[in-house]
Amino acid sequence: MSSPTPNLETVLAWIDDHLEESLGRLDDFLRIPSVGTDPGHDADTRRAATYVGGLLSELGLETDVHETEGQPMVVAHDDGPGRGPRILYYGHYDVQPADPLELWTSPPFEPVRIETEEGPTIVARGAADDKGQLMMFIEAFRAWKAVTGDLPARVRVLLEGEEESGSTSLEPFLREHATNLASDVCVISDTGMWNTDTPAITTRLRGLVYLQATLHGPSHDLHSGMYGGAVVNPLNALSRILASLHDQHGRVQIEGFYDGIEDDAALLAEWAALDFDEPGFLASAGLDHSHGEHGRSVLERVWSRPTCDINGLWGGYIGPGAKTVIPAEASCKISCRLVPGQDPRRIMTALKAFLMEHAPEGCRWTFEEHGCNPGLCVATDSPWISAARASMNPLFDREAVLVGSGGSLPIVGSFQDILGVESLLVGFSLEQDRIHSPNEQFAVKRFRDGVRSHAAMIEAFAEVSP
Amino acid sequence: MSSPTPNLETVLAWIDDHLEESLGRLDDFLRIPSVGTDPGHDADTRRAATYVGGLLSELGLETDVHETEGQPMVVAHDDGPGRGPRILYYGHYDVQPADPLELWTSPPFEPVRIETEEGPTIVARGAADDKGQLMMFIEAFRAWKAVTGDLPARVRVLLEGEEESGSTSLEPFLREHATNLASDVCVISDTGMWNTDTPAITTRLRGLVYLQATLHGPSHDLHSGMYGGAVVNPLNALSRILASLHDQHGRVQIEGFYDGIEDDAALLAEWAALDFDEPGFLASAGLDHSHGEHGRSVLERVWSRPTCDINGLWGGYIGPGAKTVIPAEASCKISCRLVPGQDPRRIMTALKAFLMEHAPEGCRWTFEEHGCNPGLCVATDSPWISAARASMNPLFDREAVLVGSGGSLPIVGSFQDILGVESLLVGFSLEQDRIHSPNEQFAVKRFRDGVRSHAAMIEAFAEVSP
Repeated sequence: MSSPTPNLETVLAWIDDHLEESLGRLDDFLRIPSVGTDPGHDADTRRAATYVGGLLSELGLETDVHETEGQPMVVAHDDGPGRGPRILYYGHYDVQPADPLELWTSPPFEPVRIETEEGPTIVARGAADDKGQLMMFIEAFRAWKAVTGDLPARVRVLLEGEEESGSTSLEPFLREHATNLASDVCVISDTGMWNTDTPAITTRLRGLVYLQATLHGPSHDLHSGMYGGAVVNPLNALSRILASLHDQHGRVQIEGFYDGIEDDAALLAEWAALDFDEPGFLASAGLDHSHGEHGRSVLERVWSRPTCDINGLWGGYIGPGAKTVIPAEASCKISCRLVPGQDPRRIMTALKAFLMEHAPEGCRWTFEEHGCNPGLCVATDSPWISAARASMNPLFDREAVLVGSGGSLPIVGSFQDILGVESLLVGFSLEQDRIHSPNEQFAVKRFRDGVRSHAAMIEAFAEVSP
Repeated sequence: MSSPTPNLETVLAWIDDHLEESLGRLDDFLRIPSVGTDPGHDADTRRAATYVGGLLSELGLETDVHETEGQPMVVAHDDGPGRGPRILYYGHYDVQPADPLELWTSPPFEPVRIETEEGPTIVARGAADDKGQLMMFIEAFRAWKAVTGDLPARVRVLLEGEEESGSTSLEPFLREHATNLASDVCVISDTGMWNTDTPAITTRLRGLVYLQATLHGPSHDLHSGMYGGAVVNPLNALSRILASLHDQHGRVQIEGFYDGIEDDAALLAEWAALDFDEPGFLASAGLDHSHGEHGRSVLERVWSRPTCDINGLWGGYIGPGAKTVIPAEASCKISCRLVPGQDPRRIMTALKAFLMEHAPEGCRWTFEEHGCNPGLCVATDSPWISAARASMNPLFDREAVLVGSGGSLPIVGSFQDILGVESLLVGFSLEQDRIHSPNEQFAVKRFRDGVRSHAAMIEAFAEVSP
């Protein structure tokens, strides 16, 4: 394990000496209820943009708060050494709504410290997602500026306020400011560690195809006494169709569903070595059995295998008691998590074709699409990953691991498509942070580890030849 | 074809001569919005009981309006000739709610006449179900009283006000008044004709087992990105389980489901001769294909074969747009229409066992029962049926046919179990009457045919040796 450079040693010491002030700034940020999706909080969301823009500006970054049709975009530049790679840091200053409020043990926008297994822990909406995480790189910039008077690499910062509501303004903004934001890598600080002692770099994200489908049968609701047994019941028919989406081995039966998917043996071997706590994972869902595609580990199923899940299902009479209705229609919401290699548009088309083929005679479908994004992967031999791993090595007992994520981060695709830049996903959240839930929290230990990691990484990035 | 007796001839003529007055009384009855299930209409429902009780009383029947925990029971007696069989006439004075009001072409409780293929037709809530039908036997009584001063048979009348809301008070009332209501046959005037020219006696009714079931999987709703592909999705699982309720031949797969069912070859032959208009039946549901148990005709499927239909299905996210949730649970309402021979309690138990057997590991069910009634059949060689058929013969061009009904009339079972009396189901409704729907209607022609038929039947019943 290598040692930090003398500069970095001083920067890391500065971070520890000034941790309480860093946390004080994070607390101030967390006190702003920037619920971007709620028009009632528009002034607060704008205030959060101004606040975080002010932090960047006071550090000497050239900072603008740009208006969009939605929430403002905070953009900052610092040319640091004036040469070498340009690093684009992405984060979001909006937060999820806090409700249900009654489940919070302290007010969501009044940060407090509680004691957990990880030591002192901040409780507040946004503590981990994503205010705490974006403050880590800003505080790393602050330390470098304080110790050396400058940043070790050229930096661009992009902070949006619509991540929790679909990033609607992001793509148009990226297109409009592509030159200004041109970078060599994008560092996204919105993912998780492997565990409290092991940093992680996320190299795979699943895509998503989401389809709402309604099967139409009789022209109106029928009485099951008068018609039952002789006419198609869209609820019975929908059940049969949805049941046939998988075979008995958990394999999705949509035509060509697995086309283009390749196993990455090296990555699978790395994952197998992770000592994944499968019973713990299942217990977190209240389960003691896993389900899914046969012959695949739980980690594989979530990180590198596509799925087909019903997310909503409705039809007929759903009130209290009995009503003997054969309804005119039955509906479902189906989503497929996709992995790299799958073409989302082809999957969407094949899913519709599957449903149409399986509809009983005399029935028809109507469809509504709600998303069509590819799975993404970052080349695991990327020099940015090597630099990030190497630079974090002296800071942790365990080397950073490469992990997947079962979720989707469409912004990664946007950066790739519009700016032509790969993303490095390195974050410090863990499941216990209760992201999107009441009592969201973030351990001070991990905040400190995150600031220190960003301080180390930016120095290492300066040495990468893109 | 025999001719009516001289007395009956006079009665039938009296009916025709006084038809407008009969229709006027029906109109008055229809103007009372006796929506028994709506507490806001309690006074109206009570008013309807008093109104119809008054009609019976003015004809000289000994009439009581009994209080119950729900709506009043109207009970009337007339010992007519003082000997011979006792005929219990059943009907209900409550009506279905009228909504959606905006689909009515005239106010539901202001009866009007429109012109249809059948001639003048009454439009009002309750015109056919059941005010129009119960007024037919009351007007038949009136005619006999007017012509001969007496009824030709001993009569009991029972009119309830809770038929549209589950007849909750009926069974306790029958138990309490069993002696008073003791009869030799129960005539129920709440079913249909075969077509506008052919009267029908319903000899089979399907029973009903109704089960609400919820499949519980994860302890809470999960994010499909974090867990999708590795844990049980109750919506996927429920679809598979419901799909397996039938095989590819439309046969229900519940253990012992068909045990005890016997085909009645003579009845099937009679049905086959009915010239059932299958395309017309399907078209009334907006369909051009039938579905169901292979190798059975549409009439058989509806009248004499059991079913298993999903009447309601719900789980996960059912709002607008996309939410990538794996829900903690998924629910359904399942009903089986049963036929004579099937034991409803055994079917209920076997249905639950089927669901439990098919639940994935780690899932569990909760159940709520909403009904468990057997299928019923009336002996087709009953002397009451022969008397009814023979007496209607002179009134119609075609002889009354024996039909089944796919629906359930639990009161038939109640009369059988508590009073030990068989029911004769003879009614004059047709599908175009839009029972339970906006613009409920009843052709004057069929009202007249019904009054005349009841006048003929009561004379014939007096001659039956029970």
